[in-house]
Amino acid sequence: MPRKIVIIGNGTAGASAAFSARKHDRAAEITVLERSPYPTYSKCALPFVIEGVIDSFETITVFSHEFYRRQKVNLINGAAVRRVDPDARKVVYEDAEGEKVLAYDAIALTLGARPRVPEVEGSDLGNVFTLRTIAHAEKILAAALKSKTAVVNGASFIALEVAEALVKRGLDTTIIVRSRMLRTMIDADLSRELQEHMIKNGCKVIQGKTIEALVGDNDGNVKAAVVGGEEIPADMIAMCTGVGTVVDLGREAGVEIGGVGGMVVDEKMQTGVPAVYAAGDCAEDHFGLMGFPFISFLGTVATRQGVVAGMNMVGAEAEVPKFYNAAIIKFFGLQVGSVGLTTDIALENGLKPESVKVTHTTRPHYYPGGKPVRMKLLAHPETQELIGAQIMGEETVPETVNTMSLAIQRGMTVSDVAMADFCYAPPCADIWTPASVAAQGLERKLAAKARSRKK
Amino acid sequence: MPRKIVIIGNGTAGASAAFSARKHDRAAEITVLERSPYPTYSKCALPFVIEGVIDSFETITVFSHEFYRRQKVNLINGAAVRRVDPDARKVVYEDAEGEKVLAYDAIALTLGARPRVPEVEGSDLGNVFTLRTIAHAEKILAAALKSKTAVVNGASFIALEVAEALVKRGLDTTIIVRSRMLRTMIDADLSRELQEHMIKNGCKVIQGKTIEALVGDNDGNVKAAVVGGEEIPADMIAMCTGVGTVVDLGREAGVEIGGVGGMVVDEKMQTGVPAVYAAGDCAEDHFGLMGFPFISFLGTVATRQGVVAGMNMVGAEAEVPKFYNAAIIKFFGLQVGSVGLTTDIALENGLKPESVKVTHTTRPHYYPGGKPVRMKLLAHPETQELIGAQIMGEETVPETVNTMSLAIQRGMTVSDVAMADFCYAPPCADIWTPASVAAQGLERKLAAKARSRKK
Repeated sequence: MPRKIVIIGNGTAGASAAFSARKHDRAAEITVLERSPYPTYSKCALPFVIEGVIDSFETITVFSHEFYRRQKVNLINGAAVRRVDPDARKVVYEDAEGEKVLAYDAIALTLGARPRVPEVEGSDLGNVFTLRTIAHAEKILAAALKSKTAVVNGASFIALEVAEALVKRGLDTTIIVRSRMLRTMIDADLSRELQEHMIKNGCKVIQGKTIEALVGDNDGNVKAAVVGGEEIPADMIAMCTGVGTVVDLGREAGVEIGGVGGMVVDEKMQTGVPAVYAAGDCAEDHFGLMGFPFISFLGTVATRQGVVAGMNMVGAEAEVPKFYNAAIIKFFGLQVGSVGLTTDIALENGLKPESVKVTHTTRPHYYPGGKPVRMKLLAHPETQELIGAQIMGEETVPETVNTMSLAIQRGMTVSDVAMADFCYAPPCADIWTPASVAAQGLERKLAAKARSRKK
Repeated sequence: MPRKIVIIGNGTAGASAAFSARKHDRAAEITVLERSPYPTYSKCALPFVIEGVIDSFETITVFSHEFYRRQKVNLINGAAVRRVDPDARKVVYEDAEGEKVLAYDAIALTLGARPRVPEVEGSDLGNVFTLRTIAHAEKILAAALKSKTAVVNGASFIALEVAEALVKRGLDTTIIVRSRMLRTMIDADLSRELQEHMIKNGCKVIQGKTIEALVGDNDGNVKAAVVGGEEIPADMIAMCTGVGTVVDLGREAGVEIGGVGGMVVDEKMQTGVPAVYAAGDCAEDHFGLMGFPFISFLGTVATRQGVVAGMNMVGAEAEVPKFYNAAIIKFFGLQVGSVGLTTDIALENGLKPESVKVTHTTRPHYYPGGKPVRMKLLAHPETQELIGAQIMGEETVPETVNTMSLAIQRGMTVSDVAMADFCYAPPCADIWTPASVAAQGLERKLAAKARSRKK
């Protein structure tokens, strides 16, 4: 008898689970239940379709219906799952034809997340949007094409990407930043530099305030946001104030929900409920460094968790790797990368890191075209191990995040990084990389502290 | 009494030793004896001045005479060292004023390397050049500006860089490749791809042959190279057939010379002769992975060895890091990177690696502008640890070499790399990097081999 595998959700985690299960079990009956009409597409790409740099929503398909068919994975769109019955190992869903029941040997809940919108007066007005799906993005794009002013509420990845898209579409765009930009990814000093960069590139920014209300016109559409008592004109509003995990189906099936809001899973992505797995934004993770629970909401993590869940569902044993929040994003030509702990996150978890920040170039001074890179490194004050890196520059940042990710993953000390064997050639890289220079600076700082302690 | 530090040679290793010694000993008397009239400049940058992308030989100064003065390092140019007397701790040198004697507490020999030129008839003709110093490069540039045809003999970094420079200067340029391109850096398959790239960009290539003789004109200048019995027209010849270590002063002072031709040093860069250090191209190293002796001739290694020598010379204890031959270079827009063992070098040392080669892109398919990257990974067949990476592409290669360098340095297995936490965003990187994809391929290959062995 072939194994019956059911996956709820065809997002990054769900699709990764399905195709990973298929790769390790050619015979399994694999069914993916998905509420939307879409195949698997890249949610991360939505802002770039709005911006116009990607030409259509079809382009961002990652696994097409045809690919599902070729892989013999039964993708059922328009399927709203009602409940999972772990005792009977059955899932109940509803599609256009009515309620149906599907038996499973193993099931993965990849339910994702949904936008969290602050409750303010007027948030039900027309042209007030969130962004999570193609349906959302289509509405934002349509509105952008006929709007002159916009307000983006939030300071996350998505908020800043949408702001850039709207500026590039010619809208007078104001970002409302309650605390600071990319707070879970970079320190306050780099947030300030990023904010200056956004302003220099045409965004207006209001910091330290929130939207108090939205004001509508006679047609029931938004016309302004009230911020600090002042009306900011806005033909459209993008509410990008973060997302929350979707875990209801899991909770109702008896899955434990952790303190950070995700389903609790083990290293095989298995929940405490037999044969029930979870992966992606809805699953809790533990930070690779200090082991505290967190949810990254990153596509990379969803993919890897999905792969591991899919393998274990068909008996090909695998354990999820540790995650260090390696992340990259680009705004108006500036790449912003981060991996490991930020100062705030370290402090919140009882660790006071030592840090250093340097500017170095991507090529030696004597070869034209090098770009400055801001490199901030954080180290454990006792072990001197690298625990965080934050990087900003026009080039080389994504791969440098990866290099620093391995340094952190493998417990390298600041001194290890300072003298590590990195490559050099005049047209490609300086003889000391920005990471080398920063690590050398941090090494000196740590040595000076150690000397002053001895006195 | 301040320490008396003497360094012979003001190249990368020598200058790094001098300024590292100064950093750790503000009082030491530091003298650098240098035969040439130049301050410290980047030898690696010489081909780019010939090409014209760097505008002058002054531009490639790394440590100016003024910088030496500010650091209170006494650089004596025009000083030809005659001998080192380790018993008396004295060095004898000659400058324009005659012979002089200098006492030292510690001395570093950073003697570098010199071009090795095959002995062929006519190699003493005019317009036959080697390339190691500014003086050489000035002559090559002057000749290039009035030549129409050129032959470059060799297939090293320098050979190919000079060939590109001459092609860009408009010369009809033929590269004579005895074995294959970049043999110590990449495998034969990638050598072939690189050769095709060079040809596509205007180089002529003759492979598997050597120059048998050079033919001169009536003025005593070269006019052709004889290769395979055929005359290749050449108004100028660049002999870039590798370099040999310069170790005479060390040998005469009793320093042991190792099997690969370099001075034997310990982890502090100390030779067996008391108070005599060596660093850079003239010093033997041991490959980080299998421990066999080698000489990288890389600026990165010379820098790190110089720093460590300089520290130990003034009593600030340091050990040289392990080297993995991390290298990068760029030809006609194509970055070629490598770290760790190549297949040939592994085989020569008794290890038969497993390998895989993939092509993946620097950005996801749905975001415009991604570039293909060729990624070849080599693993130890038993431990499954990554032992080598070879990478070719238009972007991201240098930093990816560094990432793979850390993976190799820290003993990561193919599976570790396959699932490692790397960053992703549509405008910056795909959700699986080329390294991830290659490692996953190699993981499958190793698993299949393991299964077939069990049967």
